[in-house]
Amino acid sequence: VTGSDVLLAEIREQPAVLDRLRGEQGAAVAELGRRLAAEPPRVVRMAGHGTSDNAATFAVYAGALIANWTAMRDSISLAVYHGLERDARGDLAIGLSQSGETPDVVRWLQAMRTGGALTVAVTNDPGSTLAADADVVLALGAGEERSVAATKTYTAQLAILARLAAHGAGQGRAFDEALGVTAERATGVIAELEPRMAEAAASVAAATSTFVVGRGLEYATAREVALKLTELCQIAAVALTTTDLAHGPVAAVDPGVPVWVSLADDPVLPAALEAVSRVKAAGAPLLAAGPAAASVRDADRVFAVPPAGHAVLGPLLSVLPGQLFARALAEAKGLDPGAPRNLRKVTSAL
Amino acid sequence: VTGSDVLLAEIREQPAVLDRLRGEQGAAVAELGRRLAAEPPRVVRMAGHGTSDNAATFAVYAGALIANWTAMRDSISLAVYHGLERDARGDLAIGLSQSGETPDVVRWLQAMRTGGALTVAVTNDPGSTLAADADVVLALGAGEERSVAATKTYTAQLAILARLAAHGAGQGRAFDEALGVTAERATGVIAELEPRMAEAAASVAAATSTFVVGRGLEYATAREVALKLTELCQIAAVALTTTDLAHGPVAAVDPGVPVWVSLADDPVLPAALEAVSRVKAAGAPLLAAGPAAASVRDADRVFAVPPAGHAVLGPLLSVLPGQLFARALAEAKGLDPGAPRNLRKVTSAL
Repeated sequence: VTGSDVLLAEIREQPAVLDRLRGEQGAAVAELGRRLAAEPPRVVRMAGHGTSDNAATFAVYAGALIANWTAMRDSISLAVYHGLERDARGDLAIGLSQSGETPDVVRWLQAMRTGGALTVAVTNDPGSTLAADADVVLALGAGEERSVAATKTYTAQLAILARLAAHGAGQGRAFDEALGVTAERATGVIAELEPRMAEAAASVAAATSTFVVGRGLEYATAREVALKLTELCQIAAVALTTTDLAHGPVAAVDPGVPVWVSLADDPVLPAALEAVSRVKAAGAPLLAAGPAAASVRDADRVFAVPPAGHAVLGPLLSVLPGQLFARALAEAKGLDPGAPRNLRKVTSAL
Repeated sequence: VTGSDVLLAEIREQPAVLDRLRGEQGAAVAELGRRLAAEPPRVVRMAGHGTSDNAATFAVYAGALIANWTAMRDSISLAVYHGLERDARGDLAIGLSQSGETPDVVRWLQAMRTGGALTVAVTNDPGSTLAADADVVLALGAGEERSVAATKTYTAQLAILARLAAHGAGQGRAFDEALGVTAERATGVIAELEPRMAEAAASVAAATSTFVVGRGLEYATAREVALKLTELCQIAAVALTTTDLAHGPVAAVDPGVPVWVSLADDPVLPAALEAVSRVKAAGAPLLAAGPAAASVRDADRVFAVPPAGHAVLGPLLSVLPGQLFARALAEAKGLDPGAPRNLRKVTSAL
C-alpha cells in the first residue's frame, strides 16, 4: 500500500464520514445550535491553521448565508503572542485543529474563554488538549487520518460548521437531510472524476506555479485546493478571489501557468465568469470545477459536480475534484503524495 | 521617462505623502477618532480589493493593538451579490478604494449604511462615488498615482487607518509625532536600500515562484509584497503567515524558490524565526526584510529597516524594501514595471 493509495482511500471515505455526522454523533451540534438559536452570537470568531483556516473561510459564508451570523477568521497572534485581552462576551469562539494539539490554537481558545466567549473545539480527537479546554466539543469522527494532506477532516469540518449554523437558524432537520443527499452525491463525484484526473494532470505536469480562484463560498474551496497542490505537488499555488486575480495578479498568468477555477451557480457567478474570461484571454490552461463548471467558456477541462443537497453544502462536492487532481498531479510529477517533502503531520513546536 | 522611473518616483514620494497626513489634511481622521473614542465601534468592518485589502489586513492588527478594536476584513460578496441584509448597527464600516470607483466596494459601503453602520470612505479621490456615499471621507492626499502597481496609496492607507485607531484611543498627538519620525526614516530606508536591489534581484532572477511570509502586523506586509511581485514580475508569489508556511506549503520550497520574510521585533518574532528556520533547512534562498531582519540566521540578503516611530507603524517601513525589490526583479527579468501585462489601473467592470 503506497502513500498515494492511502490518500485515495481517505478521499473515498468522505461520503461515509459526512453521513455519520447527521446521526447520533451529530447530537452535540444540534444541541449547541439550539442554544445559539435562543441567544445568537454577537460575533463568531474562528481560528485554525492551513486546512482548518480554510474551513473557517467556508464558515464565514455559511454562517452568514444560513443564520446571518457575522463570522470572522480571528487573529491568533493578537491574543496569543501579543497577549491582548479581548472582550469576547457574547461571542462564539471556535478553535479548529484536526489533532486538537496545535499549540497556538489551544492558547487562542483559552484566551477567548478568558475573554468571556462560549468556546467550542472542532477536532478529530475528543481527548485532545483543545477539547479538554473547550465548553463544547464537536468531534469530526473522521477516523484516523494517515495522510499528511487533510481531506476527510476538511469536509467533516465544513459539514459540522454548516450544520451548526443550520441548527442555530432552526433549520437543522431539513439541513441534515440535505447533508445526506450531498454525501450520496459525493460518492458519485469521486467515482466519476477520479479516472479522468491522470490525463488532466499530465497535460499540465510541467507547471511550477498555478492560480486557484473562486468567490464567495467557493473561495474557501480555492484556498483548500491551492493548499493541497502546494503540499502535494511542490507547486506554488496562489489562492485568490476571482476578482482579485483580475485586479492584478493576472499579470503573472500565461500559457505555462494553469488556472483552477471553482464556481457555484449562485449570485456571484456572473462577476466570477467575467473575471475568469480575462484569464482565458491571457492564454492560461483553464481547469473548471464545481457545480457551475460548465458555465466557463473555453475551459480546457471541466470537472462539473452536481448541486449539493443545499446550496451552502456545494463546497463539500467542489473540493473533491481538487483533492483528486492534486493527487494525480503529484503522481504525474513523480512525487509520492503520501509523503510531502519537508513535512510532518502535527506541527507541535509552533 | 520610463514606467520604471515613474514607479521609483512614486516610491520616493512616500515620506512626503505620510508627513502631509499628520497636518491639516489629517484633521478629518482626528475628528472621527474623537467620535469613536466616545463611542467605540462594536466591530470594525473593512472591504477592499488587492492593495486595499492588504491595508485592511494591517488594520486588523493596528486597530486591535492600539485601540483593542475587533476589526475584520468583511465579505463583499455576502452583502453585494447575495444581498444579505447585515445588522451593522454600532459598527464602523470602512470602504477602501484608491480610485473610489471599485464597483463592489461602493455597493458594499452602501449596504453597510443601510445596515446601520457609520460609513467611512478611504480613497485618493474625494470626488469619487465611494466618497459621495460615505458618512465620513478620509482622503489619502497621495497625488495622482500613475503606476498600475500601488505604492504611495498603500502606505497612505496604512497611516490613515493607524491614525484613526490612535485618535480613537486618545493617543492621537503622540502618534502623529511618531508618524513624522517614521516618514523621516522612510527617506533614509529608500536611499539606503534602493542601490542594493539590482544585485539581489539578479541573484534570483530565474525564479518563477516565491513565498512571502510574515506574521501579525508583518503578515500585511507579506501580502502586499507578494502582490507587487505577482503584478510586476510575472511570478507566482504565495503570501502566508510564517506558521502556515511551516505547516504545509514548505513542501514546495527548494533552492529554486526564494522566500521573502518580513519580520518585526515584536512578541511574534520567536515563533516566526522558528518557522523560518525550516525554510532555510529546505535550501531556499532567504531574503529577510523588516525591523528584525538581522535576527534571521543564514539569510542570503538582509534588508533591515530601523524601528518606526511607533511599533504599529513598522509596516510603513518594512514594505519599502519589498516595493524596491519588486521593481528591481521586474527589471532583472527584462520586464517593464510600469506596464504589467494584462492589466489596467481601475477595474471598473467587476
